[in-house]
Amino acid sequence: MFGPMFGTPAAAERTSAGAWLQAMLDFESALAAAQAAAGVVPRAAAEEIARCCRAELFDVDSIAERAVSSATPVIALVRDLTALLGEDAKPHVHRGATSQDVIDTAAMLVARDVLDLIIDDLRAAADECARLAEQHRGTVMIARSLLQQALPTTFGNRCATWLISLDEAVTALERIRGRLAVQFGGAAGTLAALGADGVRVLELLAAELGLAEPVAPWHTDRTRVAELAGALGTAAGAVGKIALDVELHAQTEVGELAEGAAGGSSAMPHKQNPVSAVLVTAASKRVPGLVATLLAAMPQEHERAAGSWQSEWEPLTDLLRLVAAAAAQTRRLLAGLRVHPERMAANLDLTRGLVMAESAAGRLMDSLGRTEAQDLVGRLCRRAVQEGTTLRTELLADQRVREVLSEDEVVAATEPADYLGSAPAFVDRALTAHAELEKR
Amino acid sequence: MFGPMFGTPAAAERTSAGAWLQAMLDFESALAAAQAAAGVVPRAAAEEIARCCRAELFDVDSIAERAVSSATPVIALVRDLTALLGEDAKPHVHRGATSQDVIDTAAMLVARDVLDLIIDDLRAAADECARLAEQHRGTVMIARSLLQQALPTTFGNRCATWLISLDEAVTALERIRGRLAVQFGGAAGTLAALGADGVRVLELLAAELGLAEPVAPWHTDRTRVAELAGALGTAAGAVGKIALDVELHAQTEVGELAEGAAGGSSAMPHKQNPVSAVLVTAASKRVPGLVATLLAAMPQEHERAAGSWQSEWEPLTDLLRLVAAAAAQTRRLLAGLRVHPERMAANLDLTRGLVMAESAAGRLMDSLGRTEAQDLVGRLCRRAVQEGTTLRTELLADQRVREVLSEDEVVAATEPADYLGSAPAFVDRALTAHAELEKR
Amino acid sequence: MFGPMFGTPAAAERTSAGAWLQAMLDFESALAAAQAAAGVVPRAAAEEIARCCRAELFDVDSIAERAVSSATPVIALVRDLTALLGEDAKPHVHRGATSQDVIDTAAMLVARDVLDLIIDDLRAAADECARLAEQHRGTVMIARSLLQQALPTTFGNRCATWLISLDEAVTALERIRGRLAVQFGGAAGTLAALGADGVRVLELLAAELGLAEPVAPWHTDRTRVAELAGALGTAAGAVGKIALDVELHAQTEVGELAEGAAGGSSAMPHKQNPVSAVLVTAASKRVPGLVATLLAAMPQEHERAAGSWQSEWEPLTDLLRLVAAAAAQTRRLLAGLRVHPERMAANLDLTRGLVMAESAAGRLMDSLGRTEAQDLVGRLCRRAVQEGTTLRTELLADQRVREVLSEDEVVAATEPADYLGSAPAFVDRALTAHAELEKR
Amino acid sequence: MFGPMFGTPAAAERTSAGAWLQAMLDFESALAAAQAAAGVVPRAAAEEIARCCRAELFDVDSIAERAVSSATPVIALVRDLTALLGEDAKPHVHRGATSQDVIDTAAMLVARDVLDLIIDDLRAAADECARLAEQHRGTVMIARSLLQQALPTTFGNRCATWLISLDEAVTALERIRGRLAVQFGGAAGTLAALGADGVRVLELLAAELGLAEPVAPWHTDRTRVAELAGALGTAAGAVGKIALDVELHAQTEVGELAEGAAGGSSAMPHKQNPVSAVLVTAASKRVPGLVATLLAAMPQEHERAAGSWQSEWEPLTDLLRLVAAAAAQTRRLLAGLRVHPERMAANLDLTRGLVMAESAAGRLMDSLGRTEAQDLVGRLCRRAVQEGTTLRTELLADQRVREVLSEDEVVAATEPADYLGSAPAFVDRALTAHAELEKR
Repeated sequence: MFGPMFGTPAAAERTSAGAWLQAMLDFESALAAAQAAAGVVPRAAAEEIARCCRAELFDVDSIAERAVSSATPVIALVRDLTALLGEDAKPHVHRGATSQDVIDTAAMLVARDVLDLIIDDLRAAADECARLAEQHRGTVMIARSLLQQALPTTFGNRCATWLISLDEAVTALERIRGRLAVQFGGAAGTLAALGADGVRVLELLAAELGLAEPVAPWHTDRTRVAELAGALGTAAGAVGKIALDVELHAQTEVGELAEGAAGGSSAMPHKQNPVSAVLVTAASKRVPGLVATLLAAMPQEHERAAGSWQSEWEPLTDLLRLVAAAAAQTRRLLAGLRVHPERMAANLDLTRGLVMAESAAGRLMDSLGRTEAQDLVGRLCRRAVQEGTTLRTELLADQRVREVLSEDEVVAATEPADYLGSAPAFVDRALTAHAELEKR
Repeated sequence: MFGPMFGTPAAAERTSAGAWLQAMLDFESALAAAQAAAGVVPRAAAEEIARCCRAELFDVDSIAERAVSSATPVIALVRDLTALLGEDAKPHVHRGATSQDVIDTAAMLVARDVLDLIIDDLRAAADECARLAEQHRGTVMIARSLLQQALPTTFGNRCATWLISLDEAVTALERIRGRLAVQFGGAAGTLAALGADGVRVLELLAAELGLAEPVAPWHTDRTRVAELAGALGTAAGAVGKIALDVELHAQTEVGELAEGAAGGSSAMPHKQNPVSAVLVTAASKRVPGLVATLLAAMPQEHERAAGSWQSEWEPLTDLLRLVAAAAAQTRRLLAGLRVHPERMAANLDLTRGLVMAESAAGRLMDSLGRTEAQDLVGRLCRRAVQEGTTLRTELLADQRVREVLSEDEVVAATEPADYLGSAPAFVDRALTAHAELEKR
Repeated sequence: MFGPMFGTPAAAERTSAGAWLQAMLDFESALAAAQAAAGVVPRAAAEEIARCCRAELFDVDSIAERAVSSATPVIALVRDLTALLGEDAKPHVHRGATSQDVIDTAAMLVARDVLDLIIDDLRAAADECARLAEQHRGTVMIARSLLQQALPTTFGNRCATWLISLDEAVTALERIRGRLAVQFGGAAGTLAALGADGVRVLELLAAELGLAEPVAPWHTDRTRVAELAGALGTAAGAVGKIALDVELHAQTEVGELAEGAAGGSSAMPHKQNPVSAVLVTAASKRVPGLVATLLAAMPQEHERAAGSWQSEWEPLTDLLRLVAAAAAQTRRLLAGLRVHPERMAANLDLTRGLVMAESAAGRLMDSLGRTEAQDLVGRLCRRAVQEGTTLRTELLADQRVREVLSEDEVVAATEPADYLGSAPAFVDRALTAHAELEKR
Repeated sequence: MFGPMFGTPAAAERTSAGAWLQAMLDFESALAAAQAAAGVVPRAAAEEIARCCRAELFDVDSIAERAVSSATPVIALVRDLTALLGEDAKPHVHRGATSQDVIDTAAMLVARDVLDLIIDDLRAAADECARLAEQHRGTVMIARSLLQQALPTTFGNRCATWLISLDEAVTALERIRGRLAVQFGGAAGTLAALGADGVRVLELLAAELGLAEPVAPWHTDRTRVAELAGALGTAAGAVGKIALDVELHAQTEVGELAEGAAGGSSAMPHKQNPVSAVLVTAASKRVPGLVATLLAAMPQEHERAAGSWQSEWEPLTDLLRLVAAAAAQTRRLLAGLRVHPERMAANLDLTRGLVMAESAAGRLMDSLGRTEAQDLVGRLCRRAVQEGTTLRTELLADQRVREVLSEDEVVAATEPADYLGSAPAFVDRALTAHAELEKR
């Protein structure tokens, strides 16, 4: 019922039962091809096997149901595949392989296909951040800490923060993509059934599938699954932060951002529901639990595990689907984001200029010393609040201040746009780093 | 692909998109009925609505797809339901309700249906434990701590431990079942659209659905969801412990237990794969992450949340499905469990009687004092290991021992069946407690 | 460094190494007393043991360091305790007990002491909620969904939601407090070293410590630990929701709530940092991971576990400390909460009355039918936004509306205080339920 | 109480309150130095600040207690530091910095110091695995799947799996070590208080501390914390797998491995408690929950967070401490591991040779075809079980077999050492990869 909300059509397709089935068949097909290349299996048999390794020839529901009695779908799959073959090819199916070889390799293939979606969406989302950072390099906005207004910054600087985190997430995902490796070890991880040909077939099989060749079978070394989970978890956190920010800026009382396709309501026509942000938030909140499940599954018994390995399958699939959905929604959210600089400006004024107290004290410090400057500004802030005036008015009216600062200097000291420090520089640095990443 | 391994057909059906859809429609139907009883809605309209609230009249995939744009499937559902109605009934659909009322109430209905399965399976599993505890009250087995042989116990005593934990899990699940409450508050949790009739309709609606009536709408009070998650988590841990024990006892080197339908392998004919235990283990390992996700979702903003609530839907569904599958497999596992008392007896002898050292020292203590008794037995143990004899032999041959204990006393002191302490009493206590629970 | 932020002095003290040490000694003392009452141990020995079971007589750091080599602090503890005793009492220490008996019982005693703090603080926090709910039964505030303004409610109604969740949390914590049971089973869970006296000593020991008497030793039945974790997790979520609400209402742009002792900043004099809410949030965010860890530890091997049990100790201690800190801060937060009804009123007007669209359409519906009423109000809303007027102004100026509603009726239809539905009734129900809970 | 069990002295020291305090002071000292180098602060002031930034001059408990009222220890720390300085230096402390700059940078310094321990211990553990892999390249052992005996492998091959996972963990930890970056952004992440000097000071500060220079302040970009958590989580899983294997092999009934310093028990002299493995297991089981907590904390509000950031501090400290303890215990465990090849050989015979069924069928397959070969061997296996003979005996006695295989061939087909496939090759590959890693 809730699937489409937590998975794009593309991600749903690439994590479906059908996708898993095809990935398993791709293993069997590639195995036969690799063994043919190694001279272990007749080329004709390998070709016939390849012809039959097409998901549409199989009944995925039936395979799944028969999986229960052995805790693996591979036995039923190999039986059905064998049944499709002529007598000559039959003995050459699944040679030397164990169930876990099929499922782990399929997991890597499924992961690769979904990672391609995720990386593509996150790169596009990063590009949108870069565009926004550039466009709003000078759009002054209040920075907030602990959900309280703090000091001025620019919206461009915020977008730079988003950009950097997305670039970091992409870098990590691309690295783990290159780590995805074929699994092939046979029942004991020794490839004993292949005699002296094991390593050779392993090399050919990795090449055939375009996956990395592992140092050895990794049946109970789950580091690459954990690294994949970690990279997906980090990416989910990065987009979760963007979504949270959008939700907060889109609050009725803040109104600085809105989604391009904000959800409305007939009974509540004023609502601008941040629908994409909500979906990203909902998806990303589920990710830490899934990552923890995959990490907790790492200690696996002996050569092949009794439960921990089996516990990985659905969580890994869910994790890929959820991060893909969150990445796609983030891209969409950023592409359509409506920015309201006028509300940013209005919100900057909400505190009667008190957000400029640090700036004002800073300007007075050289002449008055730190303590006196801070005390004086503090006093004027309280006065502005009591009198309903602004800090600028109070500064202009104060004799001690005017002994030290001219009218122009007071105005500058209380002008948010003049107190942005290195914000523009950080934007430039983020854009430069992003451009370098793009070049790779 | 992996669904059937992690969900029985019944649990899969009761957590399916169709089940959720029907539960949502049950809310809409009951709401109209309650409002008719309260005189807010014409009885004829309520009856027409009831007639149309049948899942087979709706396209669940279409509703799910249209849910994305508003982050809720309810808008599309109400639209499709309204379209089925005559003009007179149309205005009376979904009156005063908000999306969350529908989904939360549906969640409670889905949970109730799955809890019924789980409770039934766990009660049956507890009955099997009771049977085994009774049957093996006298079956002596080595107790193990830190995976090392420790002292004798009985297999019945182990079954009593399993029994107690299942009874505790059932008690908690039955309690939370009674806490499942209708959700009905409207967009602001005030039922404002119903004017003065809100509370009355709430009462009638709860009665109509057979759910508890909450003190107030609980849109952002997620304690009952958290309690449900906690009870399911505890149940998963209880069955996970049983499965782990079975896996350990079924090890080739231990061989004390086997599953009735242990999975075999043509290439490895000696294997007795504990398939059910593996599936229970795999399911239960995923539960803590799901519980954590639901707990982390508890802090929800204001009157209705921006992401946390939405993050509950799939994890709650998964949690129910997984615990149901684990409960069903545990029942099956226990019903078919094959117990090998002869292997238990053989394993008791593996240490040359050293597991009886505490017993022997205990018998010597009155005469020799604690320290001398322990030192003496320790020495004889080392000797038995070095000489390849047994502790009994060494005790019988030792002069100091024989000054204090007769041959019969030495034999008794080294007889595991004579050193069971309160094991039989604990079995009886567990059986009595179980019988009392059954009576309720 | 961060301890005091995540633990009150009382909670820190009751979860300290010293508290654990004393709880372990309480077990040893009570065990000797129970065994004396059962006639197993001389009364004088029990009395001497009791005299020595005082934490200040022990070097906790030394015990902790010596614990590493056996993965339990109990061996060193018993050795040091024995060393304090005269020769006659020495043999009667720790009789028939195993390390886990000591640590599990100590955990129950520590948990009980901290639960008393938590329950006390949560009851007081609930009382504050009740006070606020009563006081603000009529304080109109905008309800918010998805962080967007929705419809009017009262601040009292929000407090009622908080109240209900706290009452539910307290109920669950009190239930588990009554479940805390003594652990006593000896190395194999059979109490074999006590011969026929095991069950009798167990009963006396439970009575001595004021803990529940379990059906049997629960060394590897961790349901009560899991239930404790679940109840603590639920409580953390309940206070986390309150803290999140306070943070959101305290935002500079919202300004409806402030903490009594909001943290300031010299450089940023306008800040009203919601310090207590931040600490509650920080503590409660760590709870789901700890609960998951305790649930994941439930499947424990055979009679005593190899790692899972040991993994419980620090997380359980942390969980108790964090929830105690969060409960105490929540109590403090609520006791000092500053409510700004004028800002609530001002925020109600932010949308130019559009939040009253449902109310207005509802009043027009009887005469115009649902569709026309909603369309008309929707049109007027858009007009109010374009023209910079209010919905009320537009309704008053619209001919079609005025055919159906008088000026007074229009005013009433757009008056938030007249559209509160059952909010006051829900407040009353929550207060009544709370009063009943108090009576118990 | 339990600290020393879950933290080596070195790790405890480097994660102590004192270590955090010194790291915070290192930030303040380096900041003043960097600002002096940039000409922003007088060199004399920087030198005076450096002289006072020594933890022993501060009262860590007092700072921690005063932290509660502002939810940060930095205000009290800066106050105490300032109090130590002469008037000339006072204004130059903490210039332009915000609390989070201090704590985040301190976290990076603490992490670096603990990572150095962890990496050192894991590299040493990997060296031990390499030694064992080489030494036991030919030590035949039964491989086990689902805790059932499967086919032969070598103990060296198992050690190679351990080795590869440790090398992978080290690689990931070294990468994240290089990513640890200084934090410096001031209250709004703009370094506004430093005017045009912000970026220059940032560069100098990073160099001063030997940390990476970030693209921009990362106050609410938590990717590097998440990556650190992920790498630590992976490492914990890798050592958790080794510990689990050791526990299983050390079972009384298996007896293939024992810890060098296995814990004993006077009452149970036969026990060889795998104490180090238990401690590693206990520590590693807590890691997934901590990683999940850190991932869940990633979405942080605006420029600085209200609770999520604060929730990181203790879990990150715990995570570092636990992984350091687990790494150190793993190193110790492997260095002292006692291997019992004779028990491995004995266990290989437990199934009467049935573990050689795949091997035997493989030898018959060329002559008899796959199906007949498997059927025949299956039949002989069942016969061996019934008759109490061995598979080899039955093969030698079977006419159909002897038509195809000579006596020597039958013996070879049932000789575990002759059915190891690529196990030795995988050992070599792992050793080669390890040697290359060492060279870097």
